[in-house]
Amino acid sequence: MSAPTVTDLIAVKRDGGPLSDDDIKYLIAGYTDGSIPDYQMAAMTMAIYIRGLDADELSVWTDAMLHSGDVLDLSRMEGPTVDKHSTGGVGDKVSIPLAPIVAACGVNVPMMSGRGLGHTGGTLDKLETIPGFTTSFDATQFEAILADTGLVLAGQSERLVPADRKLYALRDTTATVSSIPLISSSIMSKKLAEDLDGLVLDVKVGSGAFMTESDDARRLAETMVGIGAAHDVTVSALITAMDQPLGRAVGNANEIAESLDVLAGGGPDDLVEITKTLAREMLRLAHVDETKVDDAITSGRAMEKLAEVISAQGGNPAVTEDRSLLPLPEQEIVIEATDDGFVTRCDARTIGVAAMRLGAGRRRKGDDIDPAVGIRVEAKLGDRISVGDPLAVVGVRNRSQFEEIEEALLSAWSVEEYAPEPRSLIVDRVGDEL
Amino acid sequence: MSAPTVTDLIAVKRDGGPLSDDDIKYLIAGYTDGSIPDYQMAAMTMAIYIRGLDADELSVWTDAMLHSGDVLDLSRMEGPTVDKHSTGGVGDKVSIPLAPIVAACGVNVPMMSGRGLGHTGGTLDKLETIPGFTTSFDATQFEAILADTGLVLAGQSERLVPADRKLYALRDTTATVSSIPLISSSIMSKKLAEDLDGLVLDVKVGSGAFMTESDDARRLAETMVGIGAAHDVTVSALITAMDQPLGRAVGNANEIAESLDVLAGGGPDDLVEITKTLAREMLRLAHVDETKVDDAITSGRAMEKLAEVISAQGGNPAVTEDRSLLPLPEQEIVIEATDDGFVTRCDARTIGVAAMRLGAGRRRKGDDIDPAVGIRVEAKLGDRISVGDPLAVVGVRNRSQFEEIEEALLSAWSVEEYAPEPRSLIVDRVGDEL
Repeated sequence: MSAPTVTDLIAVKRDGGPLSDDDIKYLIAGYTDGSIPDYQMAAMTMAIYIRGLDADELSVWTDAMLHSGDVLDLSRMEGPTVDKHSTGGVGDKVSIPLAPIVAACGVNVPMMSGRGLGHTGGTLDKLETIPGFTTSFDATQFEAILADTGLVLAGQSERLVPADRKLYALRDTTATVSSIPLISSSIMSKKLAEDLDGLVLDVKVGSGAFMTESDDARRLAETMVGIGAAHDVTVSALITAMDQPLGRAVGNANEIAESLDVLAGGGPDDLVEITKTLAREMLRLAHVDETKVDDAITSGRAMEKLAEVISAQGGNPAVTEDRSLLPLPEQEIVIEATDDGFVTRCDARTIGVAAMRLGAGRRRKGDDIDPAVGIRVEAKLGDRISVGDPLAVVGVRNRSQFEEIEEALLSAWSVEEYAPEPRSLIVDRVGDEL
Repeated sequence: MSAPTVTDLIAVKRDGGPLSDDDIKYLIAGYTDGSIPDYQMAAMTMAIYIRGLDADELSVWTDAMLHSGDVLDLSRMEGPTVDKHSTGGVGDKVSIPLAPIVAACGVNVPMMSGRGLGHTGGTLDKLETIPGFTTSFDATQFEAILADTGLVLAGQSERLVPADRKLYALRDTTATVSSIPLISSSIMSKKLAEDLDGLVLDVKVGSGAFMTESDDARRLAETMVGIGAAHDVTVSALITAMDQPLGRAVGNANEIAESLDVLAGGGPDDLVEITKTLAREMLRLAHVDETKVDDAITSGRAMEKLAEVISAQGGNPAVTEDRSLLPLPEQEIVIEATDDGFVTRCDARTIGVAAMRLGAGRRRKGDDIDPAVGIRVEAKLGDRISVGDPLAVVGVRNRSQFEEIEEALLSAWSVEEYAPEPRSLIVDRVGDEL
């Protein structure tokens, strides 16, 4: 018998059968080196989308992706190494205060982030609003910054998991993004390539998240925790609400300013709660006393850590004390409530799309973003408001930009007579008890 | 709302939803003109493979394919125009005697055929073993030959149904060939582009056919008859057995010789039965007296019609009287029975693959075929044989070629003590009563 062809392997998955370890390695290696063309991988990913991958297939698939390029070797690093990944949501700037807090507690945080596409912003885009701040490093530079500061806030290296870069671009145009095995292997291959001791996942659920149903979010969380276990990396996941924007700022520079508020001991309650909960979870995974979180903030050491990494990455650390160094919008326009009552809906997706249309996000890969524009949400779920109260303050380049999105943005809020049931921000946790 | 993107349409079919008429027209037009890339169509065809197309979608899909290029206009032709299409099988040379018989009865037969791939040979490859015979014409030449002789035996024009040419090549490498909606739209778009009054389908079922199960064959037949009805063309289908090779000759030049035997009033019973049954069905569709079939053969008019079309297509018509003008194998080697008893299995697929390995078929598109090599099956289902009787005579270039396939070829036969149940050659008919 001759070896199976790619067409044979597609037929196996098309009919719901399992792929062998060798099949999967051959597919990922061949797709990465270009010997398997896009159209064959497109047929395969559609078959996977509909038929799924079982736990064994998924572990091998993730491993093959992870080894499609360079893998970090942080074995010489002192102390534990833990990272966080969020599936993304509107106003989710958590990485920016979180990483310095955890690093200030003595845990290495080799954080690699992406750029935003669509209504969810990207951590890199936000960080790059800090004057001079750069995020593109080779492995040697990356490891040097991490060794010096215990922290690095970088973009994904081109040479790390190249299979995912190609596969994600393909999935994006072939309606095969929203598949739990394909999402989880994409995320976990990149995170496992960071040579971690532990990983905390923030799986968002709600209108502003990728997963709008909590059952799906839980399945995604469980799948990723399972992949971690198969790779001997302790992974836990928090499932957190993303019905309304996290914090008040939605944009880029304004989200940096709000992150600085958290490190200064202030900031919106929901953002503070999620940041501290994730920080404690990361410390537990690193076997570090979780009560250190509050002290890292109140002592100012977390803010100092941020200043330190900004310097190390070419940025101006004075931004931690002077927000006016961040880009500001030309104009701020208030959008006002037209009813009295309680806010029963403050829709994350609608607000995220409005921010994207202002220029804060990308419609297409490669689009430029506008660092200064954005939305500050003034009325959130459960707030009691009166006619004329501000719902949001919109930062724009000019008034006509505002007029284009005004009506759509206003539709994000519902105001009713009775207060809504309070909802938990942290919906659930998946992972071994620590 | 902006128009749906290709990715949106893939998502609809991925989730089992229906595509609208406009969606389908957009997909086929975009794929034909290259604005929709292979990888998006690959994801779409996999989604269609798994989710299917309903009758309305399929009719529109076929229509969009049919209009992706030129369509013949035979309205000026005198008399009815009827064609036959076979889904293909081992030793299936029926078109070659059938078309001249039907044309000799006054029905126009604008037969377009393909080249073989894999174990099923192609009518064009067989015809081109006739010295000088050409099969590539533009629409004007095609119509002129048809008008002169009532018959043309040609290859598919490049400009007829270009969508199918692209889509078939894509399906072939993405494991999406064996889908009833995709097969039936591929076949029917090409046949409907011939501007027919009627079409007879020969849907083969068995080990040597594309469809190995009779339920699948019946569904394919019913689907194609339904597409015909939606396009106001009378279509009927015969479902015929393809467990063993049809006739005795499997190859190329030897199949032409066997076709000449049929036109001369001889030939193997099974080949004669299928040829005459299909001829009568075509005459019924054309409202011509079906009893004319036997007379067309015995009078020699069918053989004359073949000589006429061979001349019109640049070939040497003397071949109809002198078979030695056809290419002959260098050597003939007999493969002998090793048991006494009845033949209970004479496997079409095994014999077809052996013939392909000799060079009579193609492993890959673009491979050359060897016109002279082939197999003559001497022992067929139900035959009583003794040790040393010939099972087959293998025509080869040299003995080592034979030795490579000998063992595999021998495995095509099973010989047992009791005769097998006789099986019907014509399994069923699908279509309106005429």
